[in-house]
Amino acid sequence: MSLTWVNGVRCDALDAADRGLAFGDGVFETMRLVSGRIPLQELHLDRLQHGASVLAIGFDRGAIESELSAFLQRIDEPSDGVIKLMLTRGSAGMGYRGEQFSTPTRILRRLPPRSLDEALYQHGAELRICRTRLGSQPILAGIKHLNRLEQVLARNEWSDDSIFEGLMLDEHGSVIEGVSTNLFIVSGGRLLTPVLDHCGVNGVMRTLILERVAPWLGIPVSETRLVQATIAGAQEVFICNSVIGVVPVSKLGSTQWRKGVITTAVQQRVNEVFVD
Amino acid sequence: MSLTWVNGVRCDALDAADRGLAFGDGVFETMRLVSGRIPLQELHLDRLQHGASVLAIGFDRGAIESELSAFLQRIDEPSDGVIKLMLTRGSAGMGYRGEQFSTPTRILRRLPPRSLDEALYQHGAELRICRTRLGSQPILAGIKHLNRLEQVLARNEWSDDSIFEGLMLDEHGSVIEGVSTNLFIVSGGRLLTPVLDHCGVNGVMRTLILERVAPWLGIPVSETRLVQATIAGAQEVFICNSVIGVVPVSKLGSTQWRKGVITTAVQQRVNEVFVD
Repeated sequence: MSLTWVNGVRCDALDAADRGLAFGDGVFETMRLVSGRIPLQELHLDRLQHGASVLAIGFDRGAIESELSAFLQRIDEPSDGVIKLMLTRGSAGMGYRGEQFSTPTRILRRLPPRSLDEALYQHGAELRICRTRLGSQPILAGIKHLNRLEQVLARNEWSDDSIFEGLMLDEHGSVIEGVSTNLFIVSGGRLLTPVLDHCGVNGVMRTLILERVAPWLGIPVSETRLVQATIAGAQEVFICNSVIGVVPVSKLGSTQWRKGVITTAVQQRVNEVFVD
Repeated sequence: MSLTWVNGVRCDALDAADRGLAFGDGVFETMRLVSGRIPLQELHLDRLQHGASVLAIGFDRGAIESELSAFLQRIDEPSDGVIKLMLTRGSAGMGYRGEQFSTPTRILRRLPPRSLDEALYQHGAELRICRTRLGSQPILAGIKHLNRLEQVLARNEWSDDSIFEGLMLDEHGSVIEGVSTNLFIVSGGRLLTPVLDHCGVNGVMRTLILERVAPWLGIPVSETRLVQATIAGAQEVFICNSVIGVVPVSKLGSTQWRKGVITTAVQQRVNEVFVD
């Protein structure tokens, strides 16, 4: 079931001197595998490439595509699941300074599917507000880098399985995202999602909804600053990522919602894209 | 010359599923090895233990001390150098949520000494101001965790070897630290160093100077907010860490300094502690 490649070779181990471990010096993608293929692969590789560019890590897209394709061909049945792709600056260089011509490390892992109860998609999930805030770092905002301690701290704030996700605020109290999801609300017939210019991860599903799903449905959508009061007053709320898709939010604190028409329409369109 | 142990076994490789790689979910120490021993070992383990506690990673100090002792006994001549100790949350757990009872991973690496030109200790080093700012994250401030992308970005801002170190500011413009050092200034006969309550690494050498060296010398010392203008007006400036010790600063922008009497006294006392 599990399968790991390091630099194109079947291997479960990584050089202990890798900068991915030493400094979190790399980027990653967690991608949904459906019937042996990755429906949103182009968007994932776009984001990975952008993140590598921000960190000045060498990125050979053709080589990564070929390796990913070869990896997918080696996957046993069942061919649904999750593919994790990590790209680090490699092992070269002492201290924080990276070598200019170091060879990046590529790690591919096949993970089991994340199966959610269908009731979550119909009736929605309960959320909480995390105490751990997202620090401000405009250079790293949006990219999916390997420095994820804030998310680890936030996710470990609760162990009650009835809470599906936690929302994270920035230091000024604006709501930015879920620990492993992005957030959308419906307000006055418009879709709104937090702007990610100083923190947060620009999720591939968020991009899909902003750039393809909402325009296709004809729903106005924009990025904005969102505070808790705005969310409490929203007509609909949902969270999303590329592994779980779109999950309506049913409860946050004392506020409750039913799944609305726009959330339903976005869910349906996203599902169509997934099986296209 | 090089030697790596993973969980007490000679091994150069780490499980590719380790959370240290996936999320930077761990802490580390970089310790100077002098004649086969680590002079500041207790202070290093104090900080490692504090960091593990902040991240809720299990920490068995006795076991780590025993393993470190066994590792040092296996080191070949020359027995000077650097020992890097990493402690991660281990491989258990899917997603950001860690398992409560996962077994931490311990990685010990022996690295070559970092030998500086003696002229640096006498005449001082030139510094620059980095463009990369340190984000604010009070929960993680002070500890030496594995999320070090800000330092990687800052260190890669310059390749001119005549610049020894870069100073990093917080988002408000206060000076916090060097990329891999802490900063002290002498102002009005007092030692001042930036307060690290919202970002920065509380270096072991910084602790040694604050808690032992300055009191032993009878020099008043305090933690405060420092801005660039205060540094420009300082009588003496130096940087420090546990590998290089104390290095006077000779130049920052258009301001120049000669090594002063307090820097010299701190250097001498630190050297005595190193060889004690």
